[in-house]
Amino acid sequence: MEPIRTVGIISKPEVKQAEQLVPALLAWLDSHGVGYRVDLATQQYSSKDLPTVSREEVPDGCQLVIVLGGDGTLLSAARAIAGREIPLFAVNLGGLGFLTAISTEELFPELERALRNEHRIAKRRMLSCEVQRHGDVVAHYEALNDVVITKVNIARMIDLVCNVDAHFVCRYKADGLILSTPTGSTAYSLSAGGPIVFPSVGALCITPICPHTLTNRPVLVSDASVIQILNLASDDVAYLTIDGQVGEPLKEQDRVICRSSQHALSLIRPPRMLFFDVLRQKLKWGER
Amino acid sequence: MEPIRTVGIISKPEVKQAEQLVPALLAWLDSHGVGYRVDLATQQYSSKDLPTVSREEVPDGCQLVIVLGGDGTLLSAARAIAGREIPLFAVNLGGLGFLTAISTEELFPELERALRNEHRIAKRRMLSCEVQRHGDVVAHYEALNDVVITKVNIARMIDLVCNVDAHFVCRYKADGLILSTPTGSTAYSLSAGGPIVFPSVGALCITPICPHTLTNRPVLVSDASVIQILNLASDDVAYLTIDGQVGEPLKEQDRVICRSSQHALSLIRPPRMLFFDVLRQKLKWGER
Amino acid sequence: MEPIRTVGIISKPEVKQAEQLVPALLAWLDSHGVGYRVDLATQQYSSKDLPTVSREEVPDGCQLVIVLGGDGTLLSAARAIAGREIPLFAVNLGGLGFLTAISTEELFPELERALRNEHRIAKRRMLSCEVQRHGDVVAHYEALNDVVITKVNIARMIDLVCNVDAHFVCRYKADGLILSTPTGSTAYSLSAGGPIVFPSVGALCITPICPHTLTNRPVLVSDASVIQILNLASDDVAYLTIDGQVGEPLKEQDRVICRSSQHALSLIRPPRMLFFDVLRQKLKWGER
Amino acid sequence: MEPIRTVGIISKPEVKQAEQLVPALLAWLDSHGVGYRVDLATQQYSSKDLPTVSREEVPDGCQLVIVLGGDGTLLSAARAIAGREIPLFAVNLGGLGFLTAISTEELFPELERALRNEHRIAKRRMLSCEVQRHGDVVAHYEALNDVVITKVNIARMIDLVCNVDAHFVCRYKADGLILSTPTGSTAYSLSAGGPIVFPSVGALCITPICPHTLTNRPVLVSDASVIQILNLASDDVAYLTIDGQVGEPLKEQDRVICRSSQHALSLIRPPRMLFFDVLRQKLKWGER
Repeated sequence: MEPIRTVGIISKPEVKQAEQLVPALLAWLDSHGVGYRVDLATQQYSSKDLPTVSREEVPDGCQLVIVLGGDGTLLSAARAIAGREIPLFAVNLGGLGFLTAISTEELFPELERALRNEHRIAKRRMLSCEVQRHGDVVAHYEALNDVVITKVNIARMIDLVCNVDAHFVCRYKADGLILSTPTGSTAYSLSAGGPIVFPSVGALCITPICPHTLTNRPVLVSDASVIQILNLASDDVAYLTIDGQVGEPLKEQDRVICRSSQHALSLIRPPRMLFFDVLRQKLKWGER
Repeated sequence: MEPIRTVGIISKPEVKQAEQLVPALLAWLDSHGVGYRVDLATQQYSSKDLPTVSREEVPDGCQLVIVLGGDGTLLSAARAIAGREIPLFAVNLGGLGFLTAISTEELFPELERALRNEHRIAKRRMLSCEVQRHGDVVAHYEALNDVVITKVNIARMIDLVCNVDAHFVCRYKADGLILSTPTGSTAYSLSAGGPIVFPSVGALCITPICPHTLTNRPVLVSDASVIQILNLASDDVAYLTIDGQVGEPLKEQDRVICRSSQHALSLIRPPRMLFFDVLRQKLKWGER
Repeated sequence: MEPIRTVGIISKPEVKQAEQLVPALLAWLDSHGVGYRVDLATQQYSSKDLPTVSREEVPDGCQLVIVLGGDGTLLSAARAIAGREIPLFAVNLGGLGFLTAISTEELFPELERALRNEHRIAKRRMLSCEVQRHGDVVAHYEALNDVVITKVNIARMIDLVCNVDAHFVCRYKADGLILSTPTGSTAYSLSAGGPIVFPSVGALCITPICPHTLTNRPVLVSDASVIQILNLASDDVAYLTIDGQVGEPLKEQDRVICRSSQHALSLIRPPRMLFFDVLRQKLKWGER
Repeated sequence: MEPIRTVGIISKPEVKQAEQLVPALLAWLDSHGVGYRVDLATQQYSSKDLPTVSREEVPDGCQLVIVLGGDGTLLSAARAIAGREIPLFAVNLGGLGFLTAISTEELFPELERALRNEHRIAKRRMLSCEVQRHGDVVAHYEALNDVVITKVNIARMIDLVCNVDAHFVCRYKADGLILSTPTGSTAYSLSAGGPIVFPSVGALCITPICPHTLTNRPVLVSDASVIQILNLASDDVAYLTIDGQVGEPLKEQDRVICRSSQHALSLIRPPRMLFFDVLRQKLKWGER
């Protein structure tokens, strides 16, 4: 990794804990001769009159991006990094996240390790998604967790035809359909009944939400596959959402094409915290 | 049952099959000296210049209501009957419904039986639901299938506290929550993972939709219970829906109170078609 | 309830905690002028040379039966009571049971209340089960939790035809089939994917274990129903088990007939501990 | 592939359909100058006085093994091939198998293609399993579908500690635990609630059977992982089964070590029949 000269800082707004943490972090960076670029929320936590940039611009020119918040803040930071090789240092404020596994107590020791280039990087493959309309690509997204198509209204249902590598898989009449990375398997897909997929598995998971058939089950396909979803629902009945955060309404006959992305997110993780440790703590997994 | 002198007819619009069926039905009623009140859709299928009334007014003064359509048409007819002792004669156009179990072939023989008072009535208990805001009852509904509270937006979740007879049951953080009658157990609740509840069971089923905990399971409570749901989500994040058809947005701190209704729907059923027969045909239940 | 002059005591063997509790309990009973009949395990915990009777004989002539152990000990005590109106006072050693909800700390205060006839009784309906072979009844059991039919060998499967009140419900090809009371809904049925059924619901739950079809779901039927299971598997492939404790191998063409029992178990419960409280504590139900 | 000079034939006993098929097959092979080695069941279907060998010896010296039967017959044929590069030509008698996808109508055309070396081979990775006791390897198995550990008796449960690559995953108190290949995902694992895993996914699935916790979910791990199961149940309470066919009782403290095998089964498949086609036909998957 490149030596860290400038870090970007993206914070979740209105978190009590950040009011002390952000000034301490800025002082620490000053004392270690590291520059920083911050978003508005970070500036508001500091006592300083710092210049701010939009979240999307924070990563520009940085060698590290620090996220102070929860998994939601991290997901938007991941989109801001947009495939660049800038590692994310994600600190969880007030809880434990699947992705934001660094606690506030570990912030400075881990940051020290990162500066010495001794940190551990976990690569998380992203999911690339494009929307085709009348043969044109009208939108493109990168997801860390999932691409979800849901109905916008309780009275309706989505009606989707799913092909994997040009083979017909299933027609889904359901409340929705989740295409999830292994990273996203512990997020929305888990709520909908999907399995837990270890991050090292090269697979994508197709999980229906409240399917109108008794026979439907989550399906795992290779991450070398291309998943193509054809929307048969009328205009604006189905809505596409990326990582639960951004998206757009779909038109009838839109095609949503998903494949494993060329990009991977580089996530800095504390050495002791492993996948199943988080699972047990977050979900009380395996406990009676 | 009172002798049948006038029948109401409620039809699903734009069903090809009804174009021949409705004139035949009207001719049959004329020849048997039975009067009728029809809604607009029924009138449009007939070749006659009939007076029409709104769906809600069709049952007035009738001793029988005929539904031509699917389970959806029947659900709205049930609301129009609104607890009066008028039996529903529900004919399924183009499929098999859980509730609309009479096929078009059976229409005239079964109608004949109904006129001779030889039909079989199945009583289906309804679910009464009221919305309390600042201590006032601001809305009241009767549901045949279910009362559902869902989030309106993918980025949010509902946050509900559920009490049964004043005992705390669970706090639900989920996509939604379904309170279902036995009749509704084969509708939305089944999609969300609920059990199949025989119509004769005196119970209500509480089924979460995509709960954010791994531990949640459907819960069956006695239909002598009062279920109280307190909405903790911000104004307009949660939406209340009755039988998938009508409803309203909820405010923070709204209470949704559900209890088994004093009303039951009287459903005329062909003698041969039983609960599990429909289940097997509709859902291919139990098949390999 | 009859005044308590003699209590029966049934203990789980080899529980450290009972070595102090049993002598204390006997002293308490002596000082309150209450006689006792004990099983061998109880005698071994006492320092006295008490006469002992078999577990099955302990309840004879008692007005109360005290169980020291877990839910398993209670299930066998319930069979020993065999439908007589003798309340069960069930103390959990070293944990929390769904049925044994009285803790060791509460033992004496609750016993005091029972002597004053101020205790709360919860009635739990039992499930009556008989095995018919060539038209004869060859066995009869009473279950508090469940009647289970399982295959004895991994290579095989059970093959059962289920009728409810003479209507065909389903043919089950599976690892097993559970017929559960509401009380048993939080036991084996829950592990197999069944719903949680409040004790006041008048229903029986039919839950398949690892069904070989994708479409199978738990089914709730009225406790006024008679459930008839016809065994199509060859002799000795299927095994019948009552409350996980007693049972016998089934022959091909055996019929297992289950109905709600005329008997109910009278369970003494502490006033504060309610169904969902136990559920939350035992299963971390509803927790994230 | 090597030119086919000799084929092995393994048949399921007592299948009516084979009485005509086997003589026709032998005549076809004679007329094409192809030799054969047969098991006893095959000989009994033929009208000839053929020499027979045990199932295990059938593949020796063959360039192709023909299976006439169902998926069960194929599983035992796969063990007989034991990692050698001999393709399996699996004909389903009287049904459709996930693995035995060639119908009797297709037998001769497909065999013709195989002789011309124009057939399609699907490689299916196997699962290697060894049992360690006091540090020694006491047994070794190769599974095509799954390695399963179950309790032998309804009154007990298994108690297993699962580690993946030396990281603690979960302690399973359950009826059993299934370690499944993608091939096996549509077999026992599916009955126990596991997901459908496309054969091209490089993963193993860990699916608990009736777990005694509400939180358990199937887990997918990379097929580069080593899964280690430590048996904490007393001697002979847990039983190990390979592909539902062979196995042995486990002792307390036995370790079952599973990893993706170096061997893959070469399965000859008709060109038209794909994974999801079989799924739809066998399981009515995705149907309403």
